[in-house]
Amino acid sequence: MSSNSDIDNLIDLMAKLPGLGPRSARRAVLHLIRKRARLLTPLSDVMQQVAATARECLNCGNVGTTDICDICDSEVRATGELCVVEDVADLWAMERAAVFKGRYHVLGGTLSALDGVGPDELRIPRLKDRVTAEGISEVILALNATVDGQTTAHYIADQLEGQVRLTSLAQGVPIGGELDYLDDGTITAALRARKEL
Amino acid sequence: MSSNSDIDNLIDLMAKLPGLGPRSARRAVLHLIRKRARLLTPLSDVMQQVAATARECLNCGNVGTTDICDICDSEVRATGELCVVEDVADLWAMERAAVFKGRYHVLGGTLSALDGVGPDELRIPRLKDRVTAEGISEVILALNATVDGQTTAHYIADQLEGQVRLTSLAQGVPIGGELDYLDDGTITAALRARKEL
Ligand SMILES: [Zn+2]
Ligand SMILES: [Zn+2]
Repeated sequence: MSSNSDIDNLIDLMAKLPGLGPRSARRAVLHLIRKRARLLTPLSDVMQQVAATARECLNCGNVGTTDICDICDSEVRATGELCVVEDVADLWAMERAAVFKGRYHVLGGTLSALDGVGPDELRIPRLKDRVTAEGISEVILALNATVDGQTTAHYIADQLEGQVRLTSLAQGVPIGGELDYLDDGTITAALRARKEL
Repeated sequence: MSSNSDIDNLIDLMAKLPGLGPRSARRAVLHLIRKRARLLTPLSDVMQQVAATARECLNCGNVGTTDICDICDSEVRATGELCVVEDVADLWAMERAAVFKGRYHVLGGTLSALDGVGPDELRIPRLKDRVTAEGISEVILALNATVDGQTTAHYIADQLEGQVRLTSLAQGVPIGGELDYLDDGTITAALRARKEL
């Protein structure tokens, strides 16, 4: 390949990113070397920053640079509505739609018998604590419309039954679809038309 | 998006890589944050290394960490054959095939009237110097089978006519290739270059 082991290492590490295979990693590395001053150095610097400061919010699982994220820290977001999502990418997708004014709870995945993921592997115990501690009146289950997502939604609904209003995003999320793939309008419409479970 | 400007900066910079859009950049950044110790920190470190040491070979345009790359520096590669490619990715592809034993010359693009790329924007003057200086007996034009690639090949052939043996890669059906998936030009070329069994 290249004559240099650092460059080879860089290609190998880049190829581990989701969406990049060996070929696109090589292309990306050549691009980075060509744009050393404008892209490679800034990218290395900001990665170092992020590696030093990024952390999961202790409350909701969002990613930020403080122990408690901006959303959990904001009194304005204490609307009594809690939106439960599978992962941070889904939280970001909801925030891009800019329609939800409450707080989030990031599960960190879905229940999966196949992969041995039970409630304690997810942030489900913490969700139950928050419902009480934060005086939550409505939990919106914004899980993906996949089998595992819906299984997880039903499990959470069982756990919180009678304690809080439970809703889910409206039909409109395509079967098998993932939030992060949807346009803002679809997310907005699905949230507005949310239904009682 | 995320609550943190470093994380947003990282997403923006990652989205500038070829093959990554905004969505895949977000996915990649979340992956990097999740694998901070095993991926983000090593990646940042090796990027810093590469930013500090990577350079183009002054002789051939290959990418390495020395002014003269390993291939140009190796006496074993002084076979008198010079393989002309458009960019470093093509050189790497040839090296992976491990069939060519000579040296390379990376043009850094193709002639393009539309984009205002003339011979002096490419490494063409240097190619002529090398043919004399390195006692080259054969120049293999391994340019892409595109209009610009073939225009460039013809231009170089004109320039070197009479000084050296000029060849190009054979055109035809790729190994494992199915006729039904090939463009007409490839089928035409393959038919014209047909061989006795
Ligand atoms: Zn939070
Ligand atoms: Zn070289």
